[in-house]
Amino acid sequence: MITKIDHIAIAVQNLESALETFRNVIGCAGEAIRIEEVASEKVRVAFITVGETKIELLEPLSDESPIAKFIAKNGDGMHHIALQTDDINKETERLESLNIKPLSLPKEGAGGKKIMFLHPKETNKVLIEFAQKKH
Amino acid sequence: MITKIDHIAIAVQNLESALETFRNVIGCAGEAIRIEEVASEKVRVAFITVGETKIELLEPLSDESPIAKFIAKNGDGMHHIALQTDDINKETERLESLNIKPLSLPKEGAGGKKIMFLHPKETNKVLIEFAQKKH
Repeated sequence: MITKIDHIAIAVQNLESALETFRNVIGCAGEAIRIEEVASEKVRVAFITVGETKIELLEPLSDESPIAKFIAKNGDGMHHIALQTDDINKETERLESLNIKPLSLPKEGAGGKKIMFLHPKETNKVLIEFAQKKH
Repeated sequence: MITKIDHIAIAVQNLESALETFRNVIGCAGEAIRIEEVASEKVRVAFITVGETKIELLEPLSDESPIAKFIAKNGDGMHHIALQTDDINKETERLESLNIKPLSLPKEGAGGKKIMFLHPKETNKVLIEFAQKKH
């Protein structure tokens, strides 16, 4: 089951500058911020909590990162939406029964969560991530 | 104060088709869906509730609609993020004190809410809406 929007991800060239911008726009205090590196995706990530969801700012750490490729093509901008599920394997089965094929099997993403993506051609050019709630 | 993400908006050429896609992806029941026309923006809008926020699908009703212009340039895709505030006038003052200028004064948007937008050049090319909670 989908329980909430886990985060909205934005690709940025400069994490510190983007973090300042979004903290100003959202007007949030520093304690809501968390920064980490996700080696598998070659990105540095800042999370800003907004209600039950998060704004996730993604800065590439290498030209090989999918985020670097996105920025080279589009510049900074909205990258994907992540839906939280309580069971990513059941979700995958449910989607496949509707003939919606995930891009890959669930793997480990930021915060140690199990994640998977759908191809944007399935969903009006919006890249959708599924992220399993930690139990 | 910003209290939550009110919605994530996606520009689509065909509302019924996009609605079927996102209902399948999110796996939600029909009762979470609401459709309305916003004459001032020349769009038809479907809202899908996900936790405390909503996915908003925007279909242009005229070539003059800002959404029609977005689709002509980019095709379907993510259009903006809306933050809910309890007081849009205070929020506008707060932003102006940080030298962040809204695109226009607050006006009436979908659901009769008072809304305003920031220029995407202020926010890493992400179009941000502020929407006042109904009192």
